[in-house]
Amino acid sequence: MMRLVTLLAALFSLLLALPALAQSPSATVESPDKALSVSVAIGPEARANYTVSRNGKPVIAPSLLGFQFTDGPQFARDLEITNVTRSSFDESWTQPWGEWRTIRNHYNEMRVRLREVNRLHRIIDVVFRVYDNGVGFRYEFPDQPNLKTANIAEELTQFSIAEPATAWWCPAFESNREEQLYNKTPIAEIGTAQTPLTLKTASGLYVAIHEAALVDYSGMNVAKVQGGLLKAVLTPSSSGPKVSRAAPFPTPWRVLLISPDAPGLYMANSLILNLNEPNKLGDVSWVKPMKYVGIWWGMHLDQQSWASGPKHGATTANVMKMIDFAAANGFKGVLVEGWNVGWDGDWFADGRTFSFTKPYPDYDIEKLTAYARSKGVVIIGHNETSANIAHYEDEMRGAFDLYQKLGITAVKTGYVADAGGVQWRAPDGSIRFEWHEGQVMARHHLPVVTEAAKRRIAIDAHEPIKDTGLRRTYPNWVSREGQRGMEYNAWGVPKNPPNWESELVFTRMLGGPFDFTPGVLSLKGRGDTDILSTIAKQLALYVVIYSPIQMAADLPENYAKYPAAFQFIKDVAVDWDDTRVLNGEIGEYVTIARKAKGSNDWFLGSVGDDTARSFDVSLDFLSSGEAYTAQIYRDGDDADYRTDKRHSIVIETRKVKKGDVLKIALAPGGGQAIRFKAGR
Amino acid sequence: MMRLVTLLAALFSLLLALPALAQSPSATVESPDKALSVSVAIGPEARANYTVSRNGKPVIAPSLLGFQFTDGPQFARDLEITNVTRSSFDESWTQPWGEWRTIRNHYNEMRVRLREVNRLHRIIDVVFRVYDNGVGFRYEFPDQPNLKTANIAEELTQFSIAEPATAWWCPAFESNREEQLYNKTPIAEIGTAQTPLTLKTASGLYVAIHEAALVDYSGMNVAKVQGGLLKAVLTPSSSGPKVSRAAPFPTPWRVLLISPDAPGLYMANSLILNLNEPNKLGDVSWVKPMKYVGIWWGMHLDQQSWASGPKHGATTANVMKMIDFAAANGFKGVLVEGWNVGWDGDWFADGRTFSFTKPYPDYDIEKLTAYARSKGVVIIGHNETSANIAHYEDEMRGAFDLYQKLGITAVKTGYVADAGGVQWRAPDGSIRFEWHEGQVMARHHLPVVTEAAKRRIAIDAHEPIKDTGLRRTYPNWVSREGQRGMEYNAWGVPKNPPNWESELVFTRMLGGPFDFTPGVLSLKGRGDTDILSTIAKQLALYVVIYSPIQMAADLPENYAKYPAAFQFIKDVAVDWDDTRVLNGEIGEYVTIARKAKGSNDWFLGSVGDDTARSFDVSLDFLSSGEAYTAQIYRDGDDADYRTDKRHSIVIETRKVKKGDVLKIALAPGGGQAIRFKAGR
Repeated sequence: MMRLVTLLAALFSLLLALPALAQSPSATVESPDKALSVSVAIGPEARANYTVSRNGKPVIAPSLLGFQFTDGPQFARDLEITNVTRSSFDESWTQPWGEWRTIRNHYNEMRVRLREVNRLHRIIDVVFRVYDNGVGFRYEFPDQPNLKTANIAEELTQFSIAEPATAWWCPAFESNREEQLYNKTPIAEIGTAQTPLTLKTASGLYVAIHEAALVDYSGMNVAKVQGGLLKAVLTPSSSGPKVSRAAPFPTPWRVLLISPDAPGLYMANSLILNLNEPNKLGDVSWVKPMKYVGIWWGMHLDQQSWASGPKHGATTANVMKMIDFAAANGFKGVLVEGWNVGWDGDWFADGRTFSFTKPYPDYDIEKLTAYARSKGVVIIGHNETSANIAHYEDEMRGAFDLYQKLGITAVKTGYVADAGGVQWRAPDGSIRFEWHEGQVMARHHLPVVTEAAKRRIAIDAHEPIKDTGLRRTYPNWVSREGQRGMEYNAWGVPKNPPNWESELVFTRMLGGPFDFTPGVLSLKGRGDTDILSTIAKQLALYVVIYSPIQMAADLPENYAKYPAAFQFIKDVAVDWDDTRVLNGEIGEYVTIARKAKGSNDWFLGSVGDDTARSFDVSLDFLSSGEAYTAQIYRDGDDADYRTDKRHSIVIETRKVKKGDVLKIALAPGGGQAIRFKAGR
Repeated sequence: MMRLVTLLAALFSLLLALPALAQSPSATVESPDKALSVSVAIGPEARANYTVSRNGKPVIAPSLLGFQFTDGPQFARDLEITNVTRSSFDESWTQPWGEWRTIRNHYNEMRVRLREVNRLHRIIDVVFRVYDNGVGFRYEFPDQPNLKTANIAEELTQFSIAEPATAWWCPAFESNREEQLYNKTPIAEIGTAQTPLTLKTASGLYVAIHEAALVDYSGMNVAKVQGGLLKAVLTPSSSGPKVSRAAPFPTPWRVLLISPDAPGLYMANSLILNLNEPNKLGDVSWVKPMKYVGIWWGMHLDQQSWASGPKHGATTANVMKMIDFAAANGFKGVLVEGWNVGWDGDWFADGRTFSFTKPYPDYDIEKLTAYARSKGVVIIGHNETSANIAHYEDEMRGAFDLYQKLGITAVKTGYVADAGGVQWRAPDGSIRFEWHEGQVMARHHLPVVTEAAKRRIAIDAHEPIKDTGLRRTYPNWVSREGQRGMEYNAWGVPKNPPNWESELVFTRMLGGPFDFTPGVLSLKGRGDTDILSTIAKQLALYVVIYSPIQMAADLPENYAKYPAAFQFIKDVAVDWDDTRVLNGEIGEYVTIARKAKGSNDWFLGSVGDDTARSFDVSLDFLSSGEAYTAQIYRDGDDADYRTDKRHSIVIETRKVKKGDVLKIALAPGGGQAIRFKAGR
């Protein structure tokens, strides 16, 4: 009952709001190239909505904005627009490391002040930044008497997709490590999805929904309401409000990457970096992109163990050999897992078993770090926390002090929380349990990164919070996991499918670097099981999957069996001046070319799916006037991931130059890697 | 990473669990007729799952059981079954009022004790009750050292639908009044749905998911994970845990109604009553099923107002006339809305404006209640709370005292929360905001009902928590709203569609009585807009939509225009000895026959959708040896809800007896109502 009164109240509000709208009749902002347009309006019940269109055609139909609070009425209706301001911005900035040396940050901004007509008169600003290839918007909570602290029950942001679309999505809240295969379904079959969530609309537009600068807020997931209507669902909290923040503060940016083709969608991901704050760490020349090897794959093969005992992997002898292998082959890092005590207890259920400073007796940490140093190699530390962040926050500073002293310049953190959840110590001293992507974890990761930065240590987080571009602000946060990497090819049921990486590029990789750990040239998992890849594809992954730290994951004895292919892994760069996506379709194939940092060399990686395909690639990206030798690692004509020809590879060289056209053929489950070496 | 260890841990758990399983090799229980079977097993990672099958064919594929907690690790894996007990139960019990005089409660029960293998060794029992037409199961938390209080972050119950299915579902969390049209989609297109959620599988099985006995717990919604996998999503709380309860306690019952046809699905809803506790109120003969009229529809038509002023509806003069109308036509109740002060303020945003004892000056409450009494009529009080339950809980006892003194024997409560949310006073004194179906509201409604019961007052809650059968335990909780009733035909955009009621019977009505307020014979909403119904259908609704209190919603002057049709409303019973669903398909048509309480008279209602249809109905339900006069109110041959023939009705009588076959024809948007009057 009473709906009549509702309608009357809404009508009344509308009447109040209209004069305000009339003061700003066109709450609209366009992208610099005028292709994208964003409008904000007050609709029925005086609710605020936004619309995104491209070349005049709706991409996001009117979609609501607002918040629910645990300690006050929702901010959702009876709103007026009291002020609209616009500005433009254009600058280019340089990445210390990355896919591009220079990134242009060029947008038009519109700031819309929303105010409640009645009673509390609360105010929230919505700020839109419209780029040529996407939109970022966020809420900003000003300091104000009736909203001193925002205790947010839910963010009411909607994404009403204007066209039918196919979606690539992973269910949210289905495991506490966010590592699952993508569903490819009509948009109406989305349940509740993690972001990035990628869509291809009926008219062929590519749209990804993600967020940027997830700082002191809860990670956003996207739930299907009905039909093509999606809405934000913040990650829950044990504390009631999903977010609790004192005003003034901004939310993370809600990001829409929009492109007429799949390659452009990947290229648009620099928008996420642009929406993050510039580097706050000052000189970060000590952050070194590198390739690394490690004591790791042997554990996943069950040939070695993290725990102590006869199979213990992290022994002084094993690591010395691995340092020698790294030095001999030009790898700058050696990851060692299972070096520290704690793996013998019930660590899986509670990371309190771990010491982050005390090595196992058969691991001579001082000797090894010194030996590594003598060989020009660094040890990459490993801190599995079992997501007991209460314990880790107690211990990490002391641990980082030790690592700095020893010259351990990078740490791989781990947050396995399958058994219980993220454990933290609440202000009242109680232990509480959370999701990986709630506000508690958003708050946890940054002190890890900044405490590490104080000691010139880089962080590579596994089972992490998702990547929202914070590497721009904290460039020592070099990489992370956050999806199914190579390890699933050791023991996963099922293993990563052949189209996995061509799907990742347009989904997970939109967020940022992925420590995928490619290069398993043996193509074997546990128990001699076959990995669903050709050997050439393993090489291509070093170009296709971006990370400034790239592992050569296989065992040294396996690399010894494939020296010719291994040469590419030794040669490939890890830091880039430029990146071009030459072609691609989501989950079918993708070809990426990257220019090595400070060099005229280019590298190309192309990966497909389970079918053979071939296409021409124009070498327009090469430097003009430069002669190149293309060192081509291609699938053999009989290569096939389903047969014993998965190791069939042809390695050949060709002289090429800018403008040449290269035919690329991919076997089923295949790939191709090319080094374009400049000079004669 | 570390998944290997996960798998090993799971394997280890399995090995530990297997001996326990071996002790109870067949954790299976069947329905009394052996058609339905439920099994519980320990699966991968030593997670517990249940399976439901019908005649050997899966209905629910293996679906997980478990909990997440805010203050401890999840109870989800590394579980063993330590004990299984079985029992049977068969009794018949009598309803004080209802669709059936007597209900048989016949089930086989299996109680499965789940225990964590490691560390905390927590225990949760799962209790299954398997009926011939459905399954109820709930968790029971025993008292135990490591789980003194369950602070539940989420219930991990899954419903993996074994077959493709069509779903009728309303999105959850999309408004705080749960009044929305149903989506009819493939199951994969469900987002997050309210319950009851109704499915029709590819093989033609009808399945509804709901719950029973929602007491001191959070209401369950059902989210689609992916494909046919659904999971429980409890209604959020402002407090962190969605549920906080000291052990020992049971959860509500998770209910699966299962039927090979749509009529059987509706008939199965008595299962929900069976899963509730017996009457706790003792003598409830003072709870009187009745038909009522009221000062109400005029407000929805915008001819009168709740607020004071020239249009004020609840004036002494208006109500006296309405009492006269009720008495003259045999209605036992007169609902009066807008009688109490508070409607002139900003009540919509905050129910603190309301007094529940102070009438408007132009409403002489003592005179009117006395006048009503003199006419054999009772006033039905109205308490709109705007969902400010802090205020209402402060006021309601005093209000009920007053009503008891005045002879107001029923109160319609209202919980409009559109503007802000449910407001309550937390233990720390702060005001907090909730959903209608969270634990706070589950805790609120019962004291309202029991405090009312102490004063022999019946409660009819609008914008309520959903109906889970608590009327069995508290028979003064006579009816509620919880979906789009007649009021949407006054001002709804859109109005209720022609197939609305044939959809409601198999969805919302599975939960329990609905104060739908039928009988608008004018077929007109606000501004002279047409209601999408024939006049005969308005009559049929009194049989089709069950409620022990049924309004004749239209204005007296409109009833004066249609005296012949009005006669059926005067004649129709509101309390029943028996109910039979004679035919039906969800959202297409349904025919229900009900036997008047303590009489040999039967009533029949049939409603369709927007197409004309006809079918034969066998009068097998009539008493044998009894002669009946069928007073038939059928659509005229030219009747059509889309034309000015929507009032076309034929009223005719026929002599009939048990076994006769009656042809029923429904016009587009039509219906048919029949009174079978026993005796010559």
